[in-house]
Amino acid sequence: MKILILIPVCLSLILSSYAQKPHPCKSPPLLEGKLNVLFPGQKLSVYEKFYYDAIGQNIRVIASGKEGNETIFADNLLLFREGIEYEIYYHNRTCIKKPLKVPFMPLEIPHDAKFLRQMVLGSSSRPGEGLLVNNWEGTVPQSKENYFLTFTEFGCMPLYVVYYTDKMDLNIMASYYDLVLGIEDPEVFIPPSFCDSVELETKDGAVANFFTALL
Amino acid sequence: MKILILIPVCLSLILSSYAQKPHPCKSPPLLEGKLNVLFPGQKLSVYEKFYYDAIGQNIRVIASGKEGNETIFADNLLLFREGIEYEIYYHNRTCIKKPLKVPFMPLEIPHDAKFLRQMVLGSSSRPGEGLLVNNWEGTVPQSKENYFLTFTEFGCMPLYVVYYTDKMDLNIMASYYDLVLGIEDPEVFIPPSFCDSVELETKDGAVANFFTALL
Repeated sequence: MKILILIPVCLSLILSSYAQKPHPCKSPPLLEGKLNVLFPGQKLSVYEKFYYDAIGQNIRVIASGKEGNETIFADNLLLFREGIEYEIYYHNRTCIKKPLKVPFMPLEIPHDAKFLRQMVLGSSSRPGEGLLVNNWEGTVPQSKENYFLTFTEFGCMPLYVVYYTDKMDLNIMASYYDLVLGIEDPEVFIPPSFCDSVELETKDGAVANFFTALL
Repeated sequence: MKILILIPVCLSLILSSYAQKPHPCKSPPLLEGKLNVLFPGQKLSVYEKFYYDAIGQNIRVIASGKEGNETIFADNLLLFREGIEYEIYYHNRTCIKKPLKVPFMPLEIPHDAKFLRQMVLGSSSRPGEGLLVNNWEGTVPQSKENYFLTFTEFGCMPLYVVYYTDKMDLNIMASYYDLVLGIEDPEVFIPPSFCDSVELETKDGAVANFFTALL
């Protein structure tokens, strides 16, 4: 009898916890995935395969893009704890090693982001036909750039990241997809052997996140 | 024993049917949902609630938008079988009744669309954290406009519809969300009583689909 009373109490507790306003969240610490980045100002479109390790604070980004008729390519390994960035060129087995002085930026909704709204991409009527996501907006304190973020409600997976100016000019439009939990090959964060003997350059690296690999 | 042999055969048949190249699909015939439409050329952004009935060939679109500082609003009922379009103004209980001579356009991937690629929005690692979608492109034979479509793999739910010119200028960017199967209130397709006595105008209506309600 007690159990019969407890069931609706537990159910209502579960339902009320679902109905709460979403809180800023952090993505899982180990992720692999793909990324399309558009820089409308530079008419540059970039396709990336990325590897993300928030535990070791490592990022590997293999990017190719089209700038006009020219195809450009980059393979960057960012080791934030060591403060080193590698530009890797497999075709001629060369490497550039630069200081990396910016802090690691985890994939997350900043704590001061403003919750905009929750929506279902697709439909909630049948399983597998829709995805519950949250939309957030805010301003980066350092650059005063505005951002718009879409992350999944369950799992805090990034979907869309948009940066724009006060005049509503778009700086970056990025969409994440094909994300998987974990890093299949942990060696992606180990620089290839031909990087070993390379001297550290004095000039700081320009790549600091997923978006700047080809800039 | 025969069953033990049949199980892997059936499994491989099921798996191979999943691995097939996606075919153009048609969305469910009765849908309610929301839509954001951007017209970059006109600097117009429209928010819509829509009701879609591909069986009776009816569409109801309630749209509001911002054009500069001005907020605009429209409530349109499109009865394609009857060939009539109603512009409904509840605030002063008036109605405009126009001929609707364009054919009903179902929510679908056209049969001659080219399959681009399949992707998971979010992650496939855990249930509820990702959505399997297909991307398509093609050209509208009549207008020579190019389109880019994203629909869900399961359920053929529309997500994104983009129309663009040969010069890559964006004409329409629409995103569908919060879709549900079925029409909660079938009376949305019945014109209100104050439309009954209105005469049919001679000029054809301008609204022919989800996108043109506020144009």
